[in-house]
Amino acid sequence: MHFADALPLQSGASIRAYDLSYETYGTLNADKSNAVLICHALNASHHVAGIYLDESGAPVPRSEGWWDTMIGPGKPVDTDRFFVIGVNNLGSCFGSTGPMQTHPDTGQVYGADFPVVTVQDWVDAQARLLDALGIQTLAAVMGGSLGGMQALSWTLQYPDRVRHAVVVASAPNLTAENIAFNEVARRAIVTDPDFHGGHFYRHGVLPQRGLRIARMIGHITYLSDDVMNEKFGRQLRQAVVETAGLDVDGEAPARAAAYRYSTQDVEFQIESYLRYQGDKFSEYFDANTYLLITRALDYFDPAAAHGGNLTRALVQASAKFLLVSFTTDWRFSPARSREIVKALLDNQRDVSYAEIDAPHGHDAFLLDDPRYLGVVRSYFESKVAP
Amino acid sequence: MHFADALPLQSGASIRAYDLSYETYGTLNADKSNAVLICHALNASHHVAGIYLDESGAPVPRSEGWWDTMIGPGKPVDTDRFFVIGVNNLGSCFGSTGPMQTHPDTGQVYGADFPVVTVQDWVDAQARLLDALGIQTLAAVMGGSLGGMQALSWTLQYPDRVRHAVVVASAPNLTAENIAFNEVARRAIVTDPDFHGGHFYRHGVLPQRGLRIARMIGHITYLSDDVMNEKFGRQLRQAVVETAGLDVDGEAPARAAAYRYSTQDVEFQIESYLRYQGDKFSEYFDANTYLLITRALDYFDPAAAHGGNLTRALVQASAKFLLVSFTTDWRFSPARSREIVKALLDNQRDVSYAEIDAPHGHDAFLLDDPRYLGVVRSYFESKVAP
Repeated sequence: MHFADALPLQSGASIRAYDLSYETYGTLNADKSNAVLICHALNASHHVAGIYLDESGAPVPRSEGWWDTMIGPGKPVDTDRFFVIGVNNLGSCFGSTGPMQTHPDTGQVYGADFPVVTVQDWVDAQARLLDALGIQTLAAVMGGSLGGMQALSWTLQYPDRVRHAVVVASAPNLTAENIAFNEVARRAIVTDPDFHGGHFYRHGVLPQRGLRIARMIGHITYLSDDVMNEKFGRQLRQAVVETAGLDVDGEAPARAAAYRYSTQDVEFQIESYLRYQGDKFSEYFDANTYLLITRALDYFDPAAAHGGNLTRALVQASAKFLLVSFTTDWRFSPARSREIVKALLDNQRDVSYAEIDAPHGHDAFLLDDPRYLGVVRSYFESKVAP
Repeated sequence: MHFADALPLQSGASIRAYDLSYETYGTLNADKSNAVLICHALNASHHVAGIYLDESGAPVPRSEGWWDTMIGPGKPVDTDRFFVIGVNNLGSCFGSTGPMQTHPDTGQVYGADFPVVTVQDWVDAQARLLDALGIQTLAAVMGGSLGGMQALSWTLQYPDRVRHAVVVASAPNLTAENIAFNEVARRAIVTDPDFHGGHFYRHGVLPQRGLRIARMIGHITYLSDDVMNEKFGRQLRQAVVETAGLDVDGEAPARAAAYRYSTQDVEFQIESYLRYQGDKFSEYFDANTYLLITRALDYFDPAAAHGGNLTRALVQASAKFLLVSFTTDWRFSPARSREIVKALLDNQRDVSYAEIDAPHGHDAFLLDDPRYLGVVRSYFESKVAP
């Protein structure tokens, strides 16, 4: 969708004209009361559900939407009942206007000149998309992590346009530790000699070293210590176990026996895994987008304008809420969701809250956990359904 | 102390000749029964206590030993009673033979050719230092974090030479998450274009970008989420608060008002703090040493040779033990210390254990916490004192 009117931003700057990529699933009903907007987190896009087909009509491998366990026909957010909209945020590298695209005033790729965008700005842009689609009120706005922050912000910026907000694995703002992890990732990118102050496109290079490090750091914080130990533990990379001719089905081998004694080669499987994740990410993700999105996370803080008082900040919210957190999520711990729940209850709002006992850390919000999916399903069936 | 005999290493390699830097405090008694060996962690040295004087006899500013709160006359490890030895490990950049020094066979700086050393190798080298000092048996061996691993390893490698082991904020091995953080830090260093495969000395450059990132990551894991929030929270860097003319003593300012909206400039105090720590570290620490020391951490796993069974691994330990952990230490959590305690109790060993309720995370082991210092003092007074 193209938008010809400039979008004023929280920073005071504006974006003169822009496009938003979006996908829809299901059918908008006659009174336009069944729309559900899905907001995405760091590494995602408007492609939330379903798969793509190639020209011959065959399924494209690994083209599932990022929340395909959650959204689709007969799924917890049932596209046989709801009209679901996935939207890609401004500043992204997956279709909507962002740093990889051309600045209409200069004819140059934006790069580091793309304006800083915030959660509030994204919500404003999403509201204009709804205007263009002729949708006044959302049955629900929903998101996980940074997407949950957008859902919460919707209820504050456009309280009359949201009946329900589903906020999963999120937080009312970042802690100092959260900001710290973001900052290290950003420094890795910005200090990569191939970053060129954010104008690497002109130099025909990509700051992939920095992106790899950023992604590796991110990945550690998405997983719980427990699930990392369970998946990887202290296992050595397979290659060496084979080289050493150890019988993996027999007695546990003396692990030390197979060390290579190298500081630069991979010794442990967790190292291969992280390097692989970093390599993959650095091939498709834009460095300036990474900076923008982590900054949007840092800046989000609806209580700030109310002297840090979240209860006062949430007075404006009139939507009904479902909050979900995961016990082993140490990035956005259950305590952070409970802060939101408490502030809503202080305001006598209608709040459902589920703390899911899941081992997977922050990543749990993307996974196929039956208790989690059941909670969302029953909320949509019993509360959201028109 | 110079050692002319080659030291065989766990990897199968050896170091042909080497020096160990060490300091001693107090007086060795006649029967040489009051020696306490202090083992250091990542970023420390043989300078554990006291201050240095300059040529005029004046104190050198900020020259306090890294465990000066713990060790000295009248302190918990009382140098009026004990002869304390601080030793710098092989591979360090603070005096003992390491990657910055010249390989005697090639006449070239070792760099990446310095052999991989393990906790066991360090303990072997320390034992030779004791031989040279004429000390057969230690009253105690003591260390925090990686230093605690060395203390534990002493009780397994030289059980007859250790009466007491004091193991603070340590673990029987690294978890997958611990290894993961080490690996990201190493990748930041190794992929810095100024690293040159570890032979940067020849190129007249230093991989400071990588070291900065490594140190920033490390710092996050040394502190607890709570103490970071308390020290820094979401406070903006001071400069902007001043620029904006906000009254810091009055009503809490609307925090968002002072955002600069920049992805590359510092916005939050936690960012300045981390950048400062990274900059400082990158000016004095050697990149190859960082790789070596984090690998020594990764490799440490005394249970490995016993099929992962720590109880069986600790059968050899005959020393008496004090273990200390800190409630908010998420790098080496109390649960990891309890694993060691349990394995020692399974073997009917004499174990004291204190879990100190401290907000500071892993860093607590270096800080001036009266309960912690009291526990160590009373252990040395009642159990270790000859």
